[in-house]
Amino acid sequence: MTTSVVPPMPGNTSDTAPGGDPAAIPAALVRASSLVSQPLADALRRLDPSLHEPVRHHVFGGGKHVRAGLALLSAAAAGGRAEDGIDGAVAVELVHNYSLLHDDIIDRDETRRHRPTVWARYGEGVAIVAGDALAVLAMQVLLGGQTSRHVNAAKVLADANQAMIAGQSSDMAFEDRPRVTVDECLTMERGKTGALLSAACAVGALLGGGDETTVDALASYGEHLGISFQAVDDVLGIWGEESATGKPVGSDLLARKKTLPVAVAMEADPEAANQLEQLLSQEPVQVGAATDLIERTGARDAVTAIADAHLHEALAALERVRLVDEPRTELVAVARFVTARDR
Amino acid sequence: MTTSVVPPMPGNTSDTAPGGDPAAIPAALVRASSLVSQPLADALRRLDPSLHEPVRHHVFGGGKHVRAGLALLSAAAAGGRAEDGIDGAVAVELVHNYSLLHDDIIDRDETRRHRPTVWARYGEGVAIVAGDALAVLAMQVLLGGQTSRHVNAAKVLADANQAMIAGQSSDMAFEDRPRVTVDECLTMERGKTGALLSAACAVGALLGGGDETTVDALASYGEHLGISFQAVDDVLGIWGEESATGKPVGSDLLARKKTLPVAVAMEADPEAANQLEQLLSQEPVQVGAATDLIERTGARDAVTAIADAHLHEALAALERVRLVDEPRTELVAVARFVTARDR
Repeated sequence: MTTSVVPPMPGNTSDTAPGGDPAAIPAALVRASSLVSQPLADALRRLDPSLHEPVRHHVFGGGKHVRAGLALLSAAAAGGRAEDGIDGAVAVELVHNYSLLHDDIIDRDETRRHRPTVWARYGEGVAIVAGDALAVLAMQVLLGGQTSRHVNAAKVLADANQAMIAGQSSDMAFEDRPRVTVDECLTMERGKTGALLSAACAVGALLGGGDETTVDALASYGEHLGISFQAVDDVLGIWGEESATGKPVGSDLLARKKTLPVAVAMEADPEAANQLEQLLSQEPVQVGAATDLIERTGARDAVTAIADAHLHEALAALERVRLVDEPRTELVAVARFVTARDR
Repeated sequence: MTTSVVPPMPGNTSDTAPGGDPAAIPAALVRASSLVSQPLADALRRLDPSLHEPVRHHVFGGGKHVRAGLALLSAAAAGGRAEDGIDGAVAVELVHNYSLLHDDIIDRDETRRHRPTVWARYGEGVAIVAGDALAVLAMQVLLGGQTSRHVNAAKVLADANQAMIAGQSSDMAFEDRPRVTVDECLTMERGKTGALLSAACAVGALLGGGDETTVDALASYGEHLGISFQAVDDVLGIWGEESATGKPVGSDLLARKKTLPVAVAMEADPEAANQLEQLLSQEPVQVGAATDLIERTGARDAVTAIADAHLHEALAALERVRLVDEPRTELVAVARFVTARDR
């Protein structure tokens, strides 16, 4: 297996072969964590010492390294070695972590992965600056690689970062708007979540030496996977248990977030749209009534169908080009894991 | 004059020739503003529409485009055309503006250039995201240029951004420390202010086709200029009038900032150090007594001497290499303007 530098571990990952339990962490992600941990720690040492503690608190506070896994698998799927994608894997994890640091401030989230967030523990200023540092470090990691592949990867990652910011900005703007369309919502989620998952794959494929068609196919896989993941996340954000999501039940509606279920419900039924607008504009938001109303419009099933459709698109993208078989199969397993509903 | 695309304007800039009134805006900066305004506006249009208003509120709220001017003059001084430096000039202005957006949140500054800051007007979330967007846009502008010079410039700017972040982080950490040494303070200010002025020159020189020695000399000019500027700013931060600084008198001490005058006073006299530590630890800070004490140690004159010494170093760096005469003379004028004490 070209990507298997770290042998599969016994026990908790023994049942994670493709086709196994989709809720168990895929072996590829476990290997990715092993491959990326040291280079990630090395990169973080380049930061100013005053930032080491808060940054490590955040970066090593858990997380499944999905984006790193996608970068490494994409490098291998494109015909390179998984190791060729390491700089890209580190860079996308850094961008992901910077976005979490800043989003936690914006959303006033005080816990993440059952621990205090950086702004809650070290103050907002530290969290802002730590996020800035990780974002720049990602570019330094890629631009420090001397190849034209690295430069191309840096461009792709910068563009994805900008798209992610656009998505985040739209998401915030939507909170102040009474309604959004399903199209607007999908565009926002394509930016907020799809862009970085897409870039993880594209960056990996570029560093692995993939040609343009291969890079595009893997980028498309990542983008659809991101939208599917986000759609599932939106369902969990309204109906998920706190034990599964790590957030209080109903927190998305409480924050007046116009996620997919809200947009779908509003488009499905003009009467429900008026009622929902009403319930979400009250102070405090009428979370229980809004949840029931959204469910009654059939939006929950409709969003689940959107998630399924984008997962299907993601998997179809993997069939459009010639990829190395083993990592392609693992990309399928990662897609099924990431979009599993019982996370 | 190779750099003069926009003719010198009559009136307020007619007396700004090198050797003229050092407080009048140098003609080179007026030309830089003209050259960079349109490309900067074009770059900003690439941002998500939801960010256009807050970003324009900030970026076009004044500012003398010192960094853009340094980039354009450095491109010309290194033997290129001023226009060769435009992408670099735009990128450094973007990085500068992103840092202001984030610093204003961190410092809770509600006004800048006599207008509300972005966080005060549009909310913290918008200011965080708008800053992130400008930082990434800077990299996109440089990586979008297809030459290896652009890639090298992107590397230099990313490194400078990280150094600036380190300086900002140290500055924040110093607020919670009773004492800092002069060396620690100078290192912090080299990062916080010197790094980006240095990068402005280096990026311009790279894009103008300068060789390594030329780039290094101009980078050194920019770094010393930055430290000199910051030392002057530190003096104004304690003794400057609100009409000149745009900030309330004594705001640096009120925030317990360990700027150069504080560090110098503490190193000059152990007895004064103890008293100063006392005055700064009280709630509220004893600004008047602390100001008098710092003045009595001779720290004000000592910091002015540090500013003069770094200005001297900056000008000496311009003599170390062969530069095009006209832009070199203008770099001297910009240095004298930026470090003038009657700003």
